[in-house]
Amino acid sequence: MKILLIGATGTIGSAVASALDVRHEVLRVGHTHGDLRVDMADKSSIERLFEAAGEVDALVCTAGIARFGGVEKLSDEDFAFSLRHKLMGQVDLVRVGLSYMAGGGSFTLTSGDLSQKPSPGTVAVAMAGGAVESFVRAAALDLEGRARVNAVSPRWVKETMVAQGVDPAPGIAADDLAHSYVELVEGDMTGRVVTL
Amino acid sequence: MKILLIGATGTIGSAVASALDVRHEVLRVGHTHGDLRVDMADKSSIERLFEAAGEVDALVCTAGIARFGGVEKLSDEDFAFSLRHKLMGQVDLVRVGLSYMAGGGSFTLTSGDLSQKPSPGTVAVAMAGGAVESFVRAAALDLEGRARVNAVSPRWVKETMVAQGVDPAPGIAADDLAHSYVELVEGDMTGRVVTL
Repeated sequence: MKILLIGATGTIGSAVASALDVRHEVLRVGHTHGDLRVDMADKSSIERLFEAAGEVDALVCTAGIARFGGVEKLSDEDFAFSLRHKLMGQVDLVRVGLSYMAGGGSFTLTSGDLSQKPSPGTVAVAMAGGAVESFVRAAALDLEGRARVNAVSPRWVKETMVAQGVDPAPGIAADDLAHSYVELVEGDMTGRVVTL
Repeated sequence: MKILLIGATGTIGSAVASALDVRHEVLRVGHTHGDLRVDMADKSSIERLFEAAGEVDALVCTAGIARFGGVEKLSDEDFAFSLRHKLMGQVDLVRVGLSYMAGGGSFTLTSGDLSQKPSPGTVAVAMAGGAVESFVRAAALDLEGRARVNAVSPRWVKETMVAQGVDPAPGIAADDLAHSYVELVEGDMTGRVVTL
């Protein structure tokens, strides 16, 4: 399969790229590095990305940022930024990508377990993630028979926790996580949110 | 309690108003009717609403609209409209309302069960609802000890189904739903999404 991987240079994305590389052609896409570039917050940048990529058999997105902070601290712009990047960035990858997706192809997005199990100071991240999960369930119904849409909802990644000096015990290793992305790309599930 | 009820003229809102009226002072707020008016999509309108209302002991929102349509049919504006009204409208009611909320007061918002059980053509409604649910869980942690935040996630309301000529059997009666809003206002729960 020819697979477009957005966020390929991140901690999760690099692990997913290595796991997919074994059996597939992976086009690595980053914001500032990679085979191709995209600004997920800009729909025209997404359009240019697909024009450059051409038809693909699958898209995986491990990117999408949102702002941390409590509900009283976050500004209007923090909320708007989080919805534009992590939520609408991924939604627009699906909306634009549909025209470039081979029949039976798939979109695999990333939410995050803060949507269901938040901590203090994660409200914008949680909101965007919860919306991505509902998007996946609903869009899968609209696209049934044409394309599959799923998401992985990871908890903190061990590698990130180590880098931040936090005990990585409750986290998941990026390689273990990557395995779930591969299963969603190669399987026949749709409308699924895999929590890890 | 002095309770600000946004959406008081709607099907759910009227039932909630009647149920709250028994023991509380209800300020009915609508877009075009009511004791007070608000345009939920406009944060300055929300600020003017609270300036007019003064300190309140609870806020209930049964309003917040989003656009129906499949993922391929909805425009950029349909998605933006849905996030601005149903999602950020309710989020901004909490953000602005915090300064006017009496100690230990509560916010009770409305999501909708399409967030978890969508139908085809409900993607923007589902997204906004899923984000509201994650917002409630996360914001409740940020505001612990200061204010409670909950949501009701209703399925279709029987009265609406009858008005639309649909068999109301799977729906919930507005009065039964109203009971849950009252429980959330009068109880001590926070971060809860009550699915009905």
